[in-house]
Amino acid sequence: MALIVQKYGGTSVGTIERIHRVADRVARTQGEGHQVVVVLSAMSGETDRLLKLAHEVTGTPDERELDMLLSTGERVTIALLAMELRGRGLNARSFTGRQVGIITDSAHTKARIARVTADRIKEALNEGVIPVVAGFQGINERSDVTTLGRGGSDLSAVALAAALKADRCVIFTDVDGVYTADPNIVPAAKRIDKIAYEEMLEMASLGAKVLQTRSVEFAAKFNVPVEVNSSFTEGKGTLVTKEDKDMEAVAVAGVTGDRNQAKITIVGVPDKPGIAGRIFGPVAEAHINVDMIIQNIGQAALTDLSFTVPRADLKKAEPLIQRVAKDIEAKSVSITEAIAKVSLIGVGMRSHSGVAAKMFEVLSREGINIMMISTSEIKISCVIEEKYLELAMRSLHTAFDLDQTQA
Amino acid sequence: MALIVQKYGGTSVGTIERIHRVADRVARTQGEGHQVVVVLSAMSGETDRLLKLAHEVTGTPDERELDMLLSTGERVTIALLAMELRGRGLNARSFTGRQVGIITDSAHTKARIARVTADRIKEALNEGVIPVVAGFQGINERSDVTTLGRGGSDLSAVALAAALKADRCVIFTDVDGVYTADPNIVPAAKRIDKIAYEEMLEMASLGAKVLQTRSVEFAAKFNVPVEVNSSFTEGKGTLVTKEDKDMEAVAVAGVTGDRNQAKITIVGVPDKPGIAGRIFGPVAEAHINVDMIIQNIGQAALTDLSFTVPRADLKKAEPLIQRVAKDIEAKSVSITEAIAKVSLIGVGMRSHSGVAAKMFEVLSREGINIMMISTSEIKISCVIEEKYLELAMRSLHTAFDLDQTQA
Repeated sequence: MALIVQKYGGTSVGTIERIHRVADRVARTQGEGHQVVVVLSAMSGETDRLLKLAHEVTGTPDERELDMLLSTGERVTIALLAMELRGRGLNARSFTGRQVGIITDSAHTKARIARVTADRIKEALNEGVIPVVAGFQGINERSDVTTLGRGGSDLSAVALAAALKADRCVIFTDVDGVYTADPNIVPAAKRIDKIAYEEMLEMASLGAKVLQTRSVEFAAKFNVPVEVNSSFTEGKGTLVTKEDKDMEAVAVAGVTGDRNQAKITIVGVPDKPGIAGRIFGPVAEAHINVDMIIQNIGQAALTDLSFTVPRADLKKAEPLIQRVAKDIEAKSVSITEAIAKVSLIGVGMRSHSGVAAKMFEVLSREGINIMMISTSEIKISCVIEEKYLELAMRSLHTAFDLDQTQA
Repeated sequence: MALIVQKYGGTSVGTIERIHRVADRVARTQGEGHQVVVVLSAMSGETDRLLKLAHEVTGTPDERELDMLLSTGERVTIALLAMELRGRGLNARSFTGRQVGIITDSAHTKARIARVTADRIKEALNEGVIPVVAGFQGINERSDVTTLGRGGSDLSAVALAAALKADRCVIFTDVDGVYTADPNIVPAAKRIDKIAYEEMLEMASLGAKVLQTRSVEFAAKFNVPVEVNSSFTEGKGTLVTKEDKDMEAVAVAGVTGDRNQAKITIVGVPDKPGIAGRIFGPVAEAHINVDMIIQNIGQAALTDLSFTVPRADLKKAEPLIQRVAKDIEAKSVSITEAIAKVSLIGVGMRSHSGVAAKMFEVLSREGINIMMISTSEIKISCVIEEKYLELAMRSLHTAFDLDQTQA
């Protein structure tokens, strides 16, 4: 008998028919002799409906009130599923974030979990009850309702699994696992059976939208085995877990692409000490995340400085950089939006050498110019022209032996 | 400066535009120098939408889960109104039933209030905050969400007004007060300026749907002055308050009509001791509310026994009574659905004699046969043929000088 936390996302509980299917799966898991804790998101579309109401009321809704509003979505689904399970004669009971003791800080709309007591869940499990818990929400020390930000239900599930020392936390979603690349771009992409927390973190933060980043960090910290699986099909999913020998045997676990970047180049920057601080200080103050930075030594003590920012922040960044460039007496500023970042990820890079060299060679063979490079222990990223992104991903996927073998 | 609890019903917060208007009124009341506590219902239609979802899930939804589900409706409106007020620069904050300490028993879907702490409201008021409170809901001692039954938001408002020792509790609804009769039936009906709790209770339980009965009982018990007013118009409403000299000066305060009754007659009941118990015992066990009972002495120690039950319970009552009639060897059972009850209500009846006599005379003059009569200190009711109900109400309304004087 195992203790399993099952989390179902918004599309998995989007209709009454789908809630029936969730109930089927919960009943089956219990029938197999396991203890089940269910964590639910709001019905898909509900959060957007509520947000729309809020924005019809006022332009900038108060965040504490937004949390009061948005936290209703999960309460609806947990009540409906608990009813459904009880209607089948199963002893289920719904619990809010407060009732299971998900205590957060007071950063409304993006609260961080401080601790999880889970007392009522433990009690319920001892009584043979299936707890059905509202994801995405908690309360702060004042007992005000907070929410954990988009994707926060994943975090609720992982945090509960950690608090309960569950054997596994299964995230049911609309895809059946984590793939070696986005199958929409790389048709030969294949599902990964097992992936390390660190790899998953890189995948998540680089644009693979399967698991929310903070929930992966949390799972890694408390060593919670997380399985990503589809609520619509039967079959194996992807297990996110501690790094092991199998994973290290492979140099590259996956290829990701990210179009949400823009490149800013300041041309003709006087090469003086302290100049970087004068440029990036104001950028940081404006809460703009700089990803890569490259400095080219030019002629006569002038350098060109290029860096990437999220494309969404470009409007905010551009006037700021124009002002800074003037202040430091640089020559000009140029902006390139049509860039993309292609990355290789794998814990195996620690032991496999030559991955970077091979990557550059593959891109070069395809006639793709590399504009910027950054590396970490388990990742290599290249900024390229956006139009080459699909080609780059497919070529790298093949070159690193990730293509699906035909059955 | 007064402390005023304002309760807005579902139609008053049914759209974003109407929520704006509620905010106007709250702002104006505060602007006049008063402290305001706002209590809200769910947007009209929302409770029915949620109930429909529940019934799509399962035939007989669990009541604890129903409360979890239904309590979301008020959370949406309080969040929206608090946002709106804050958007205008007013310091408002939403609170759930739990957060303001509305503690109930565990009778889910129809919980009774055990006590109200109101600590966070008092604190908020001291800080100059406008508390916006979810009506209809509380928590039990286990900290599970409960709801107070249909119309429960009125009760929330009155209970909070009592706990806060508020100067007044204003119930904003879609009518501008309590009328001497239903204006749809009696066009000459006029708004009552002031009505005693007891009168209001009789009006409410006899079918005037303005205020929920339990909230009037609660107001009477704690002597909370309750004003019923329209949220759509400006002007005076009806004040529900302690009995006073003005009220006693008038014999009849209002006329009500009730069609939700059916008459059952058991013909030829042997006139033996204990027979009433054998009839009404099973009826009570089936939770059927018997209103009036009349016994006619017939010939040869046989009596006819007539009584009224809610028309909705007739299906349940009829087979039961047929069985009982057989057991006690009565002759037959006859059912009359087309009856109605017309009533006169007024605390003035205590000091005015002759009200009953005049009522009988008026009905007789119109050719209306009286089938049953019941009286209390402040009420006289007659059961008549349903088709005469409107005529009876209008005639009595005129005869007891209740018709609106033309301006």
